[in-house]
Amino acid sequence: MKQDLDQLMAKRNLDAFVIVSDENYNPLVDYMTNGARVFGGYVLKKRDQPAVLFVNPMEIEEAAHSGLRVVSYSDINYTELLSNRLPESALQVELWKRLLGLAGITGGRVGIYGTADLNVYLELFRLFDQQLTGFELVGESGMTLFDEAMLTKDADELARIRTVARKTNEVLQLTWDWIGTHRQHEDGQVINAEGTPLTIDAVKQFVLQALLERDLEDTGMIFAQGRDGAFPHSRGNDAETLRTGQAIVFDLFPRERGGGYHHDVTRTWSIGYATPQVQALYDTVMEAFDRSLEMTQAGQSAQVPQLTVLDYFESLGHPTRRSHGDTHNGYVHSLGHGVGLKIHERPSLSQFRDDVLQSGNVITLEPGLYYPDQNMGCRIEDMVMIDDSGAVVTLTTFHKQLVLPLQG
Amino acid sequence: MKQDLDQLMAKRNLDAFVIVSDENYNPLVDYMTNGARVFGGYVLKKRDQPAVLFVNPMEIEEAAHSGLRVVSYSDINYTELLSNRLPESALQVELWKRLLGLAGITGGRVGIYGTADLNVYLELFRLFDQQLTGFELVGESGMTLFDEAMLTKDADELARIRTVARKTNEVLQLTWDWIGTHRQHEDGQVINAEGTPLTIDAVKQFVLQALLERDLEDTGMIFAQGRDGAFPHSRGNDAETLRTGQAIVFDLFPRERGGGYHHDVTRTWSIGYATPQVQALYDTVMEAFDRSLEMTQAGQSAQVPQLTVLDYFESLGHPTRRSHGDTHNGYVHSLGHGVGLKIHERPSLSQFRDDVLQSGNVITLEPGLYYPDQNMGCRIEDMVMIDDSGAVVTLTTFHKQLVLPLQG
Repeated sequence: MKQDLDQLMAKRNLDAFVIVSDENYNPLVDYMTNGARVFGGYVLKKRDQPAVLFVNPMEIEEAAHSGLRVVSYSDINYTELLSNRLPESALQVELWKRLLGLAGITGGRVGIYGTADLNVYLELFRLFDQQLTGFELVGESGMTLFDEAMLTKDADELARIRTVARKTNEVLQLTWDWIGTHRQHEDGQVINAEGTPLTIDAVKQFVLQALLERDLEDTGMIFAQGRDGAFPHSRGNDAETLRTGQAIVFDLFPRERGGGYHHDVTRTWSIGYATPQVQALYDTVMEAFDRSLEMTQAGQSAQVPQLTVLDYFESLGHPTRRSHGDTHNGYVHSLGHGVGLKIHERPSLSQFRDDVLQSGNVITLEPGLYYPDQNMGCRIEDMVMIDDSGAVVTLTTFHKQLVLPLQG
Repeated sequence: MKQDLDQLMAKRNLDAFVIVSDENYNPLVDYMTNGARVFGGYVLKKRDQPAVLFVNPMEIEEAAHSGLRVVSYSDINYTELLSNRLPESALQVELWKRLLGLAGITGGRVGIYGTADLNVYLELFRLFDQQLTGFELVGESGMTLFDEAMLTKDADELARIRTVARKTNEVLQLTWDWIGTHRQHEDGQVINAEGTPLTIDAVKQFVLQALLERDLEDTGMIFAQGRDGAFPHSRGNDAETLRTGQAIVFDLFPRERGGGYHHDVTRTWSIGYATPQVQALYDTVMEAFDRSLEMTQAGQSAQVPQLTVLDYFESLGHPTRRSHGDTHNGYVHSLGHGVGLKIHERPSLSQFRDDVLQSGNVITLEPGLYYPDQNMGCRIEDMVMIDDSGAVVTLTTFHKQLVLPLQG
């Protein structure tokens, strides 16, 4: 949790950290700035001291909403610095020296986090190593400081996550109901009352509209029919008309508008009816889902639910990445991941990671099976949290019916 | 232009480049992949060779839309690599070795571009320097390879930019008209026919809706009234009710849905009437705008329009960053910037840069004046392009009237 940051810094022997951002939404800056809409800022924090937020003067009014100490270019005489027309990288070195000074960071091990242009920082890191004497800049891979802090959510975060979940469930229900108002043309196309074919683009527009009305924003939904659904991240062909009897993978992972907490859910729908093949695939994935949920427990290795699913699928003869290397058929991804300000957080429910499930985790469970040659894929995903008592609470309460009946 | 990439690589003595991305939209990957919706991929290009796109197997179906040669984990035995349970950074080094090999990049100077977690790459760059023998990884600041390519847009890009411009102009007109259907309450609040106060949040919702209907998405619009408008990047207080006689800064910079080309426009509106102070501020900024447009010419230094505005504002006694360092009053930013897949591209219309205007540029002109203590700010921004003949074509055709009359 956020309150553990100082302790997690100590564990890493970090004296301070700097979060760098660019003009895009930055989840780490958001995490530290209490929802202030700051773009392009730096967060600097000395261990056991409050964080400092550095922003362009144009952002100071927004930055004040963070509750942090806000500093700006005027505090480091930036315009004077610019007027010297230093080379860009030399300018950055001088900027960093002044910034670190402002935040009272006078030396020691400084963790560098955040997202920015690698071309700029490849050059800068080399210069920093030479010119920031007394500082050791520290990177990390794997379970980083912020991964570890974000592993468990505090009460404020959980409240926001529950709100996003409730709204996302509403959007799923509305979409299900709306598609159901359509009817089937004799050729299997789904059409509206006027006979107009219902396209994937129209469905996505409907979903975007429903999200917008709830102050949520899409971050790249998947609505993939038939063969497209057999490629887990194919977003679907917008121009395509919905057809009855096809497996449709609908993966929706919106967040609070402007950047914030996510929900992540997948349903597989077959409109009008399901073929025996699709029904059988669905039943198998549903059974895998139920087994994985049963093995999701606080204190448990996060590998266990994944291994359970691998064992189950393999026992039925489905290829997996464990049994068949880089297969494109069968079960081709891990079981799930943490969800928060980033769509993919820790813990990882993967056989290649060593995370342990615990209270405060918010994770997905999303087994799937994919058969491009049979023009079908299926994935079922809920988001769940592990509460203070260790109970697993399902946040995705929307039903898991496969066949979406046409009422129109 | 994109077609100049090989030549621009030669100019930098680069034998190859790699673009890294994370799970978010990446403009450089988009630039290279012809609109394929690929997330988390790497683009590798050897000079004078076609680019190669490396993606997670889950993305291969989308990646195929790029027209590039697509390679995936199975081509580098990634699952086997994962099974060895190497430390995360050692795994990355091995991944890069195999990737570079796949793309036929066997050594030399390799430019690194794209956006990713700095904590990961700070560690990786140090390892690469030790372990990628025969390679020199190259960073750059200032005018980078892609900045330079993107300086000028080709015909396909310009066609898309024109479409986004047309749609954005429509949204501005709709918003203007819709606000105009409201009426004034006796206390100066703007209310609808039922007497409900019109909030900034409601305006933003209206705009988002209008964007959505046109396949555009917002990237953080500003609708800032009174004092908020005097801080150039304050996004405005959503809960606030619109009031007559206040300067409202409305800065809209949407892009194609899911990531793509932007438009960028600002208008300053005063509802019902303008106070003499707001009118005077507006007239001054409008004059600065006209003067800057006049000085925007192919072959001209991009400093010239900015210097023209600085001279004009200072001649009237307004503080600027040139005359008054890090002032928060007066003219506190540069005149404009290139616009494309990124909202801020080159050329920079700044006295601190040495860019030259040329055919194919798509830029903003956006003078402004800001007086927090007087509760008012004003900015007027058009996006213009310089066509093949050198003519400056205004893409923001929406009118620049200050007073938005209430008809309701």
